[in-house]
Amino acid sequence: MSVIKQSDSKLYVIQKNNGSLRDILKDMYVHVRAFSEKIAEPLEPEDFVVQSMPDVSPAKWHLAHTSWFFETFILAENDKNYKPFDEKFSFLFNSYYVQVGDRWFRPNRGLLSRPTVKEVFEYRRFVDEQMANFFEIANDETIEKFRVPLEIGFNHEQQHQELMITDIKHVFSINPLYPVYKSFEDDISRDLPKQNWVPLDEGVYEFGQRGDSFFYDNEKPVHKQFIHGFAVSSLPVTNGEYLAFMNDDGYTRTELWLSNGIAAVEENGWNAPLYWHKIDGEWYSYTLGGLKKINPNEPVTHISYYEADAYARWADARLLSEFEWELVSKNFEIEGNFVDNERFHVLPLTKDENKSVSRLFGDTWEWTKSDYAAYPGYRIPPGAIGEYNGKFMSGQYVLRGGSCATSADHIRRTYRNFFAPASRWQFSGIRLAKDLR
Amino acid sequence: MSVIKQSDSKLYVIQKNNGSLRDILKDMYVHVRAFSEKIAEPLEPEDFVVQSMPDVSPAKWHLAHTSWFFETFILAENDKNYKPFDEKFSFLFNSYYVQVGDRWFRPNRGLLSRPTVKEVFEYRRFVDEQMANFFEIANDETIEKFRVPLEIGFNHEQQHQELMITDIKHVFSINPLYPVYKSFEDDISRDLPKQNWVPLDEGVYEFGQRGDSFFYDNEKPVHKQFIHGFAVSSLPVTNGEYLAFMNDDGYTRTELWLSNGIAAVEENGWNAPLYWHKIDGEWYSYTLGGLKKINPNEPVTHISYYEADAYARWADARLLSEFEWELVSKNFEIEGNFVDNERFHVLPLTKDENKSVSRLFGDTWEWTKSDYAAYPGYRIPPGAIGEYNGKFMSGQYVLRGGSCATSADHIRRTYRNFFAPASRWQFSGIRLAKDLR
Amino acid sequence: MSVIKQSDSKLYVIQKNNGSLRDILKDMYVHVRAFSEKIAEPLEPEDFVVQSMPDVSPAKWHLAHTSWFFETFILAENDKNYKPFDEKFSFLFNSYYVQVGDRWFRPNRGLLSRPTVKEVFEYRRFVDEQMANFFEIANDETIEKFRVPLEIGFNHEQQHQELMITDIKHVFSINPLYPVYKSFEDDISRDLPKQNWVPLDEGVYEFGQRGDSFFYDNEKPVHKQFIHGFAVSSLPVTNGEYLAFMNDDGYTRTELWLSNGIAAVEENGWNAPLYWHKIDGEWYSYTLGGLKKINPNEPVTHISYYEADAYARWADARLLSEFEWELVSKNFEIEGNFVDNERFHVLPLTKDENKSVSRLFGDTWEWTKSDYAAYPGYRIPPGAIGEYNGKFMSGQYVLRGGSCATSADHIRRTYRNFFAPASRWQFSGIRLAKDLR
Amino acid sequence: MSVIKQSDSKLYVIQKNNGSLRDILKDMYVHVRAFSEKIAEPLEPEDFVVQSMPDVSPAKWHLAHTSWFFETFILAENDKNYKPFDEKFSFLFNSYYVQVGDRWFRPNRGLLSRPTVKEVFEYRRFVDEQMANFFEIANDETIEKFRVPLEIGFNHEQQHQELMITDIKHVFSINPLYPVYKSFEDDISRDLPKQNWVPLDEGVYEFGQRGDSFFYDNEKPVHKQFIHGFAVSSLPVTNGEYLAFMNDDGYTRTELWLSNGIAAVEENGWNAPLYWHKIDGEWYSYTLGGLKKINPNEPVTHISYYEADAYARWADARLLSEFEWELVSKNFEIEGNFVDNERFHVLPLTKDENKSVSRLFGDTWEWTKSDYAAYPGYRIPPGAIGEYNGKFMSGQYVLRGGSCATSADHIRRTYRNFFAPASRWQFSGIRLAKDLR
Repeated sequence: MSVIKQSDSKLYVIQKNNGSLRDILKDMYVHVRAFSEKIAEPLEPEDFVVQSMPDVSPAKWHLAHTSWFFETFILAENDKNYKPFDEKFSFLFNSYYVQVGDRWFRPNRGLLSRPTVKEVFEYRRFVDEQMANFFEIANDETIEKFRVPLEIGFNHEQQHQELMITDIKHVFSINPLYPVYKSFEDDISRDLPKQNWVPLDEGVYEFGQRGDSFFYDNEKPVHKQFIHGFAVSSLPVTNGEYLAFMNDDGYTRTELWLSNGIAAVEENGWNAPLYWHKIDGEWYSYTLGGLKKINPNEPVTHISYYEADAYARWADARLLSEFEWELVSKNFEIEGNFVDNERFHVLPLTKDENKSVSRLFGDTWEWTKSDYAAYPGYRIPPGAIGEYNGKFMSGQYVLRGGSCATSADHIRRTYRNFFAPASRWQFSGIRLAKDLR
Repeated sequence: MSVIKQSDSKLYVIQKNNGSLRDILKDMYVHVRAFSEKIAEPLEPEDFVVQSMPDVSPAKWHLAHTSWFFETFILAENDKNYKPFDEKFSFLFNSYYVQVGDRWFRPNRGLLSRPTVKEVFEYRRFVDEQMANFFEIANDETIEKFRVPLEIGFNHEQQHQELMITDIKHVFSINPLYPVYKSFEDDISRDLPKQNWVPLDEGVYEFGQRGDSFFYDNEKPVHKQFIHGFAVSSLPVTNGEYLAFMNDDGYTRTELWLSNGIAAVEENGWNAPLYWHKIDGEWYSYTLGGLKKINPNEPVTHISYYEADAYARWADARLLSEFEWELVSKNFEIEGNFVDNERFHVLPLTKDENKSVSRLFGDTWEWTKSDYAAYPGYRIPPGAIGEYNGKFMSGQYVLRGGSCATSADHIRRTYRNFFAPASRWQFSGIRLAKDLR
Repeated sequence: MSVIKQSDSKLYVIQKNNGSLRDILKDMYVHVRAFSEKIAEPLEPEDFVVQSMPDVSPAKWHLAHTSWFFETFILAENDKNYKPFDEKFSFLFNSYYVQVGDRWFRPNRGLLSRPTVKEVFEYRRFVDEQMANFFEIANDETIEKFRVPLEIGFNHEQQHQELMITDIKHVFSINPLYPVYKSFEDDISRDLPKQNWVPLDEGVYEFGQRGDSFFYDNEKPVHKQFIHGFAVSSLPVTNGEYLAFMNDDGYTRTELWLSNGIAAVEENGWNAPLYWHKIDGEWYSYTLGGLKKINPNEPVTHISYYEADAYARWADARLLSEFEWELVSKNFEIEGNFVDNERFHVLPLTKDENKSVSRLFGDTWEWTKSDYAAYPGYRIPPGAIGEYNGKFMSGQYVLRGGSCATSADHIRRTYRNFFAPASRWQFSGIRLAKDLR
Repeated sequence: MSVIKQSDSKLYVIQKNNGSLRDILKDMYVHVRAFSEKIAEPLEPEDFVVQSMPDVSPAKWHLAHTSWFFETFILAENDKNYKPFDEKFSFLFNSYYVQVGDRWFRPNRGLLSRPTVKEVFEYRRFVDEQMANFFEIANDETIEKFRVPLEIGFNHEQQHQELMITDIKHVFSINPLYPVYKSFEDDISRDLPKQNWVPLDEGVYEFGQRGDSFFYDNEKPVHKQFIHGFAVSSLPVTNGEYLAFMNDDGYTRTELWLSNGIAAVEENGWNAPLYWHKIDGEWYSYTLGGLKKINPNEPVTHISYYEADAYARWADARLLSEFEWELVSKNFEIEGNFVDNERFHVLPLTKDENKSVSRLFGDTWEWTKSDYAAYPGYRIPPGAIGEYNGKFMSGQYVLRGGSCATSADHIRRTYRNFFAPASRWQFSGIRLAKDLR
């Protein structure tokens, strides 16, 4: 198990290889599509069907929906006579693109036994062949025209790869047989490094993304924010620290919680992170490697925003704003425990990691205190692709940095992930800050 | 497609063969178990997983639960050292036997991808081998002792075979791809026979079952009821007749409905039987043979009690009581379109069927106006097996006669099926009566 | 506090006085209307507004609705030019008469601050004056024509008087200030009489009502039932006996309960009758006389059907059918602790009451095991008045005998009250029977 | 009807009068308390009881709760032997102060008929007398010590005065009798002024409150924000403009809405602002002066955040951030149509109002695009009073400027009101901005 550097990751290597745009896009396509199927390998046909809660989609839905994306936004867009694999798939595998037509009701995705997994893979084959053909016969102008939709398609499929992993984890987690998706090595003997507080100066800084390489519309426009002086913790919060919060009655001391947070605790009966089980007085956690004893040196994960916020208050600290996070990140290379490791789980901290800010990227997304909102000057792009980000800018919080289920070549310093504050099934954890005033 | 006579059915033939009790029970076991797997043959692995509504169980659950029954009430009961196939299966595949231990929450049966279908079939093989061994080595006293639990086990598995069929139908029905389970021939050209009203005299009659052959506890004790004179319709209500009710605003004329009935209509948006779809102005129905045009000569089915009751009021008639139904049935042989036909659908009426009371058995269960209650003198049997019937005696109505999903050797004149008045996913239809006063 | 004989009750005296039909009906009208207002006397204006659960109606709604009944079915029916007090009241104070027009959504009755109590009383005055005028100027033929609707109106208002009492009790009961509606004397020192089992012979008997005096359509037609021999308990079940059931883990032993019953127990958290509170280890009950210690010699009341059924199973007995109850009642005079006593609570049993069957009438309604269904030959009467009873014949159980909130002149041996099996806010208790076979 | 200047308002005059701190606080107390009762004057006793939705509290609850506040945080705090008016009132009239003890479940406030209105006024009298006594006998140090809690108490009661008005409006609005609380003059003939766009420069500005006079903790600390250049609309959006949005299919064009917004539209069936009714093809609105035809020149109000956001997108503009709003407000005096006018409704715009930014204060709160969050450096104060603001900082949006139900002496340029984005029962409307880039 080693740290993955983004600059060594597959898509970055492809892009550096100085191929034609056509070749680069084709190679990226092949690479991204293959990884979705790699994720599916350990699954039995039955595992592809289940939707264990409304947020979860069945694995075969992910595999089909990502194919539908290329079929709809590349193949059908490019060829008005394109004949889809199955007319009904557009209805079944559209997700939230209202402007593209009616959709199958999301919480009912687990009610569909057909198409079978075999048929979904045939669908993928069909789309892959059509896409191969597209890359072969399209003229350069067409390739250029579809460059952005293709890049969105790659990034979209990578996002669904992350969701496939977290969704399978949820499906397996509720099963009393605790299936193992893929085993991993654990080491719980290491000493915990001590956290440092790293200060940053107040000032007006620029945030957001511009330039040629791909990024999402929600990362722009580049704009300014005034940042007050603050200090960031060198390390993410660990299971061991979180257990201290739990043992200090963290889940029942209402003064530590937001009003909506304590309501969520009571409504859902939360008393620990998602997937934690107390068995004979000891805490265990369901992982994709099976049920394991809690490792105190791992970054805590599967935490809601509310829990992150309450923990921070208990620790006499606070979460970072998304801008503070981005500011910190500018000093560090993008590297970490990404899905490329195929560990599908966080890595324990090691003794010597407290030299500077560690684990910003990979392992577990970090909740920020920023609600997910438009940047100054942002406008929703027109058309169906415009539904990708802007319409979700209400009632959610921003997470930064990627996780052990994120591709190394998918993340950016400016990347804004977002989830509702009660969500816990993503790999989501805590980084602390303090005011310097 | 022909009428099945109960006396020719497999279990009756086995019982007539004058084998030893051991041989009879063993042959019955083999026969019943085999038919469950026959029902499963047309299914893909994914079809075994889905629970399309709380009343439905996944096919693999049925296959495992029926095996659990023999494991629990025969194998473990007979051998205190019996080692079950998997300890956790008892939790997963218990249904409602509170006295046997905790159960997996029923509406969540569709959330389990594991055990896989393959593992469930291995479970069945394991139990079948153990049972074969039991039949071989048990002494005669043991065989005698387990005779009743075994017979309950056979009848229990037959009930789950019927549920497997109706559950698969529901799972397939909500899928926009309308999968075909098994094709059948249809003939919509026949003339509809005219219904007659057959009178029966008032008097005190005996009802219920006694004797040596198997029957459920809810059919006893034999007791008396006073029956007022009434007339029974010679034919079940057909799709054509039901369409006339629909076209006469049957679903919106509140004066035709019970208060709870019209509430169910409004809450569920009912405007036709379950599985009916209006497509381009024509009525179709999803069947296990696929989506078909409505055949007006078929007995109407997939009707709730409330719809049956409202239809009867519209037709200036009423439903029979379960006692009236049983009284009528005494004059007729047990024969009809049972699951043994493997048609999995009702048969259209034929022109010459109105000579006497027709289609009492098979095709579609007939709702009676009787709430499901204990017979005078009935007592719930002790122990877990006592949970089979008695505790459900509230809030349900009795249906009589079996359906095209019932085994010919499973039904009796005294057989009391029961469902909540809003249930529609069973093959359930209408037989009318009139008062003679 | 004394036993009220029906033959001495006000309406019976009026009817015996040999006045003209006009005078009898007018006197009955005045008497019935006055009692509604008597019930309202102890209330503050705020008490008339609250709807503490969907089944409860605010007191001012009852007072207005009963006036609306006379306005709609007598005054407007008699005079096509009748100008109602307020056009909108028809919408606000219609209850369930679908055929009379739209209705205010029942669970929202407590959301109406207007009309005020004062305005509702003005409405009553207005209707009373119009009715006085009607009685004065209508010719004999008109009086005769409206005799039945008038009698329904009187009985309807008496039913709402009972509901006003039970609804006020519920409204007050949930208030931590435990308001006193009217104090009553209690005596908890008496010895409990011992219950006897009184046998009745099997046979065919006639049930239901016929003849000239008023009765509801659901009590007819007179018809026959075969009754098997049984024994009835001489006494209703007491608080003391019910406490023994509670102390014997009655609420958690699933084998004692119907499946729907234990589900209701769990869903509602029942562990005692409605209105019981355990305070410092002692059981208290909220009564219209305030919070009181449980008196073990009182008939238990505010019990659901499910609890009555479970208690009976625990006591190795069963509930009576409604026919058995009616058969028993034929041997006894109609007398008891009715609302005419203005105690508004059950009376403790006295030592010498076990000579024969006691307390059949008054005190607390007795749940029977009979679902509320049409008698053989029953047909729903046409028109709006037909909505009174027939459409509720599903999902409810019959109660017999009246309670301490029922008028002595309202009850009959054939009177069929009915409530859903989970209802507890009526005065409803338990009478036991045993099979003699 | 005239514009109210904050500097002329009662509490400002009291504070300017140079009395002793004791006298100032006493006079403020008397003034604030009296206005609560003035608001109650037009109500009938029944009107004080109803809770028409969970967000609404009955008027008598507001009157009692504000008294409980002084009893709890002044009287009991000052005198350890203080004997409250009624021990149970603490349970009934606590709102959300978890640290002060258990509370009556909020959505059940409308289920309490007792204490009566009369008793609640007795409670107020009692507290007022105790407070009068406090002001008389407390030494200067005590007065100084309680200065902040007293000021919170005054502001708290003013907030509840605003809620009383909006809650009564909701209670009356759902009543088909449309009661009139207080009539007002309307004038729908005026010409609509044309809106201007007023530009503001980019820069780093300071926001928030400091200093001696009262303000809430959520307004501090004073801190900096970078503001990009923008233009603000001179006028709030009017009913006429909003109607144009409605007539342009504003409520059904999904591309105009946030995802949560269109879900709220569908779930609640919104097709117009709250209180609007289409009658015979014309739009009416329920006001505290009764049902009125829509006046196109009034500022639109009773709008959710989602509707404000969708309207802004339709108008090719956006909402202001709360900081932009505060920046704009610095150039204008605090004056407007406040509750001191006792109009209880917005005022139509007049022809000559477009000279500069108009109606920032009063009439209707203006939704900003800022989620309600802590200012940089904010910390929740310790103790029960700390529960006032900080714990609600999630899932809500900030509104600025006050309304026709706000006291002129209650509002500040830095005042942050906040409600959930689907809330509509407050006077809440729209101010637009545009980016200058």
